[in-house]
Amino acid sequence: MYSFHELVKSFADKFNQKHFPAEPKTLYEPGEYVLQMGGKRLRPVICLMANELFGELTPDAWHVANAIELFHNFTLVHDDIMDAASLRRGMETVHHKYGTNTALLVGDVMAFRCYDHLNKINTSYLHRTLSIFNTMARQVCEGQQLDMDFEKQSAVSLNDYIHMISLKTSVLIAASLEMGAIIGGASDGNCRHIYEFGRNLGIAFQVQDDYLDAFGDPDKFGKETGGDIRQNKKTFLMLHALEVATAAQKAELELLQAGNTPDKVEKVLSVFKACNVDEWAKKLKEKYIQTSLQHLESIAVLSARKKPLLELTDYLVQREN
Amino acid sequence: MYSFHELVKSFADKFNQKHFPAEPKTLYEPGEYVLQMGGKRLRPVICLMANELFGELTPDAWHVANAIELFHNFTLVHDDIMDAASLRRGMETVHHKYGTNTALLVGDVMAFRCYDHLNKINTSYLHRTLSIFNTMARQVCEGQQLDMDFEKQSAVSLNDYIHMISLKTSVLIAASLEMGAIIGGASDGNCRHIYEFGRNLGIAFQVQDDYLDAFGDPDKFGKETGGDIRQNKKTFLMLHALEVATAAQKAELELLQAGNTPDKVEKVLSVFKACNVDEWAKKLKEKYIQTSLQHLESIAVLSARKKPLLELTDYLVQREN
Repeated sequence: MYSFHELVKSFADKFNQKHFPAEPKTLYEPGEYVLQMGGKRLRPVICLMANELFGELTPDAWHVANAIELFHNFTLVHDDIMDAASLRRGMETVHHKYGTNTALLVGDVMAFRCYDHLNKINTSYLHRTLSIFNTMARQVCEGQQLDMDFEKQSAVSLNDYIHMISLKTSVLIAASLEMGAIIGGASDGNCRHIYEFGRNLGIAFQVQDDYLDAFGDPDKFGKETGGDIRQNKKTFLMLHALEVATAAQKAELELLQAGNTPDKVEKVLSVFKACNVDEWAKKLKEKYIQTSLQHLESIAVLSARKKPLLELTDYLVQREN
Repeated sequence: MYSFHELVKSFADKFNQKHFPAEPKTLYEPGEYVLQMGGKRLRPVICLMANELFGELTPDAWHVANAIELFHNFTLVHDDIMDAASLRRGMETVHHKYGTNTALLVGDVMAFRCYDHLNKINTSYLHRTLSIFNTMARQVCEGQQLDMDFEKQSAVSLNDYIHMISLKTSVLIAASLEMGAIIGGASDGNCRHIYEFGRNLGIAFQVQDDYLDAFGDPDKFGKETGGDIRQNKKTFLMLHALEVATAAQKAELELLQAGNTPDKVEKVLSVFKACNVDEWAKKLKEKYIQTSLQHLESIAVLSARKKPLLELTDYLVQREN
């Protein structure tokens, strides 16, 4: 069996090559550009890990892993257009560098390319794998639409936010695991558990991300904190704060959001603390981690085989206890 | 066997229903909107016709036909964004009505929905059908990119233009036929012929479209002529004219393109006629029709079964002899 970090390296080595034909250069040079930006390639690796949970790594898992990484990059290219983002991973975004129309087509062609890789897998798994992939892709689009909708709404419930996060980010993790498992010959029950392991882990990761953006140590977090607050982003913390705050605290938050005073971050954080949002977020994250781990526990394979997925969990989320 | 017009009606009856879940409404209402715009639904129908060429119409051909019509609508939604078009079939385009970001996602979700339909077909045809569909989708994206590239270039060769048209519009017709044929159990040779029948017919149709926009009878053509000339569009006619014109004629065309005088259309047409562009275009169309019909002729089935495809040919292109 391979460790999580070994698989990260193996996948990067295999994936870092040309993915498109040479011509038309105006389409495929931008396509190669975005794929060369790198990134952690986590999602394809967890597909490989789920595959190995049930036996030897199979060639088909690598095909699905390629499709997953291409799909992820397709979402980045189109999301960057929608967010009008000019930078990603410190580099110019595709639409910023090559124009919006080309970026749109680059995303499209990348989405179809996923199915070239999926089409290489053994016929016996093809229908089920396609079904999971298609459903995931549809849900990710739905999540992105809900995210855009929420930005325009004044009030969003925490439940609706969790639903959106689940669609926008968690189902890709969950589906990556499930497809790897299916190709590994996993039973329906095991497939369901590994899917839920991933879905809950994804939500825990997002809670942590929101928490760290507010309360994290900038040195450890790797970026300046308070960005979400400055941009009035709807986060787990803000939505919960608005749900539990007193009328006076709510009014203060709304006033702070209406402006951009130099002490905005500091003052919002002090309302968050007064509402115990920090402690609540830690507990919420812990709840999702525990649910996630229970599903991992329930998968009927030898515990030793689960070690890489536990390594992954520790890599993605810091556990409190 | 069904006639071409019977299949048009049957497909429209089956296709005109809801295609997406109810929620999120902000995503799927625009999705239903574009599908309800109608259109002739020609491409899925020719898939059904190709299927029936080899035997009884099969349920799988209907699944593929659905995928084809969804794919075609996906291209319309994304192309309208790229062309900044505000109207299609007399109705507001999706991005104009619902915003560019939503239109982008509507196109994406429609592209993935194609594969839900493809995934319903019998396993024995799945790999080959996916392979044709994926290749076609990639080529259509390439064609759209080349079309955008050409609009920015001063000189485009006729061969490059034919290559672009083949990718942008003909391969969808060709692939629709080939997928229908594969599901009908056609041999490799018959599949190749039906693909080439469609690809050449598609090019003939485009030559005719360019011809009618310049020389057509507005009453019969259904829209005002001269639009391509007024917009300086690169067409079969203009590219050929620029290739065969004398230095003086070429200078006149370039001068006319640089301005927008009231007599622009009339003057360009007179250069076209002086260069025999009209006769040349008729011959070019005829050449592609003949090639197309030779491929239809070469398909090894009873002639009687080819009647609907001949009806289709007559519907799409008016033959000179």
